[in-house]
Amino acid sequence: MNIIDIILKKKNKQQLTEEEIEYVIKNYVNGKIKDYQMSALLMAIVIQDMTNKEINYLTKYMTLSGSKLDLSKFSNVVDKHSTGGVGDKTTLIIAPLVASCNVKVAKMSGRALGYTGGTIDKLESIENMKLNLTTEEFINQLDKIGIAITSQTTDIAIADKKIYALRDATGTVESIPLIASSIMSKKIAMGTSNLVIDLKVGKGALIKNIKDARRLANIMIDIGKNNNMKVICLLTNMNIPLGNNIGNSLEVKEAIDILTNKKDNELKTLCINLATYMVSLGLNISLKQAEKMVINNLKNNNAYKKFKELISYQNGNLSSLTKEEPKYIIKAKTSGYIINLSADFIGKLAMHLGAGRLNKEDNIDYNAGIILHKKNGDYVEKDEIVMSLYTKKELNLDINIITSNKKVKKEPLIYEVIK
Amino acid sequence: MNIIDIILKKKNKQQLTEEEIEYVIKNYVNGKIKDYQMSALLMAIVIQDMTNKEINYLTKYMTLSGSKLDLSKFSNVVDKHSTGGVGDKTTLIIAPLVASCNVKVAKMSGRALGYTGGTIDKLESIENMKLNLTTEEFINQLDKIGIAITSQTTDIAIADKKIYALRDATGTVESIPLIASSIMSKKIAMGTSNLVIDLKVGKGALIKNIKDARRLANIMIDIGKNNNMKVICLLTNMNIPLGNNIGNSLEVKEAIDILTNKKDNELKTLCINLATYMVSLGLNISLKQAEKMVINNLKNNNAYKKFKELISYQNGNLSSLTKEEPKYIIKAKTSGYIINLSADFIGKLAMHLGAGRLNKEDNIDYNAGIILHKKNGDYVEKDEIVMSLYTKKELNLDINIITSNKKVKKEPLIYEVIK
Repeated sequence: MNIIDIILKKKNKQQLTEEEIEYVIKNYVNGKIKDYQMSALLMAIVIQDMTNKEINYLTKYMTLSGSKLDLSKFSNVVDKHSTGGVGDKTTLIIAPLVASCNVKVAKMSGRALGYTGGTIDKLESIENMKLNLTTEEFINQLDKIGIAITSQTTDIAIADKKIYALRDATGTVESIPLIASSIMSKKIAMGTSNLVIDLKVGKGALIKNIKDARRLANIMIDIGKNNNMKVICLLTNMNIPLGNNIGNSLEVKEAIDILTNKKDNELKTLCINLATYMVSLGLNISLKQAEKMVINNLKNNNAYKKFKELISYQNGNLSSLTKEEPKYIIKAKTSGYIINLSADFIGKLAMHLGAGRLNKEDNIDYNAGIILHKKNGDYVEKDEIVMSLYTKKELNLDINIITSNKKVKKEPLIYEVIK
Repeated sequence: MNIIDIILKKKNKQQLTEEEIEYVIKNYVNGKIKDYQMSALLMAIVIQDMTNKEINYLTKYMTLSGSKLDLSKFSNVVDKHSTGGVGDKTTLIIAPLVASCNVKVAKMSGRALGYTGGTIDKLESIENMKLNLTTEEFINQLDKIGIAITSQTTDIAIADKKIYALRDATGTVESIPLIASSIMSKKIAMGTSNLVIDLKVGKGALIKNIKDARRLANIMIDIGKNNNMKVICLLTNMNIPLGNNIGNSLEVKEAIDILTNKKDNELKTLCINLATYMVSLGLNISLKQAEKMVINNLKNNNAYKKFKELISYQNGNLSSLTKEEPKYIIKAKTSGYIINLSADFIGKLAMHLGAGRLNKEDNIDYNAGIILHKKNGDYVEKDEIVMSLYTKKELNLDINIITSNKKVKKEPLIYEVIK
């Protein structure tokens, strides 16, 4: 067996065998297959695709490339994964909300390349937060307070880490087989038995259309079944940013606003939905019972208490989050219904302000970002404030808020649930 | 401009601009674009293809990546290029044959990965051959004896050398845009004004079918036109090996057999055809006149004299080529018409015997190879000798000569000529 024959097979749109996929993963991890060979194979996979069988094998050997976490001592652990989008701070809200319902929430999250940071980047905007828990600390904390969030340990799904870094640098990120195997190998290695996936669809997401989202969802559910994991996918809208705040510390602040019942928006609705599925899975109760519990624990501040417990248990200092003054204010020049504040537009702007990384070496400005006072479909008067921009940079911005006289139909928040 | 956007564009089958192609070549040569990024782009090009416009730009910037040779002091220089096949020793015959007709032949050739060596490997089987001429030595020799053969200097089409090595290791060799730009960038940089291309088609060639061969031929002719170079392509059969000998020193011996009129086979016919086009171009005479001159100079030993002059001018010692005894003899087990000695089968066998390289670091056994006493379509009696195998290895061979009772139609040697 040799890597060139395997590359040629995939280039010619042929199906790889289990042995070939095992060979690729093992020899890429041990360095015998070079980055330049792996990236050629990844591009062939991106263009020529893989069958479900191949994706299952790929996930299997990516999982086996690292160590496994043993969460079997906990009976009610639920994990949640989001495929990522602009303004997506749901983990910050849902994790403590679900944990407050006596479901264990064990989250390993990532930093991110792209428009804004990942969950770990967001939490790092809180002073002193310890986010590199050892496996022992992670499990102990889960046992003690029912919730723990840490950055990925280096020995879980080693192949995924190496492949993911390569995909970022070679234009091979957008691929259903590669996305599915990346997510699922980590979850299997984590010992997850219940998983709710927030699968973002739209302009600000990796997956642009419902058809691809359905295929990705069904593949992940299939992989879950083969690994004794219950998987539920919510296909949710990422054409416009989620919530009003975009940028790391701004998103933590919005999460706190939701947890303290100071705000009611579509972000809150989505969080209640995702949390309901998680609690229903974790406690094995009906969706109706779960929803009631979730709404209650949000109202009565139990979720917020769990959030504060989580932050202080991991050394974080919430009082470090101070109110900043915006550097720039963007007003509407015409009255009407806003139409151009799409997720990708806002995401790029946030990155430009310093909220995200283009390269792995880039530093994030934790306070940089955007508050959207109005969103697509909202009506604005001429000269009304639409956005506040936060940045350390001196920028020459030329942002036009485009409005239409016709009322714009609001898009659905959740397209469908696949399980 | 950044490499990831360019990779994504090609992945999505979009056309790259001149500026983008210039950016890729310049930044790959200077190391800013990494091998793993280039290989992802190459795979996208292999699968999604390029327009003629893109291929012309690619050739342009690959040419500009290195230095240029100035052959303008010679008025009648002709070059010949073969896309490579099993048993292809035409350069060894044609170069001195054409030079003996007072046409200057300036050949820069390569070593090769694959079934058997390249022209340089073949010549290295002659003791003491100096094949790393400086540019000055190369041009002086061309002036003095009208013929010079050397391995490629390192500063001609630098991008091609770097890209070619990467293609070899990443399964991205078989691609019309990449083959065309690789061949033509070197020829343009060499200052070639007349070029005859032996474009091999079939099982033992990079190009498997006539349709692809026609496209490749027309693209190379088009690139030639844009660079004041006359290009003629002969599409020739590579379903079975060319001639009877395969392997480096064995091929030199067969070339000498043709040059000394000891042998008359389809290899000789092809050489006369290719030489005729070259002489016609170089002296600007009709094909009929050129053919007469070529056949004469073969008959009267002028071609062989030129061959000996070339070898001794470059320090080679022809008497080092001694007759070897075959290690294994393969006989037919049934009588009938041979059907299974295809070019790819024989090529793999030759490599197995030690005649070729799988990896760049591999050593070639110059004396390893095969003599085909019979070829596909030939009739054999039971127990008649079909092949003699030359190798230093002890091998457990299990080779069956498959025969058919039905007479097999001989395939054409030259499919068509495109100019």
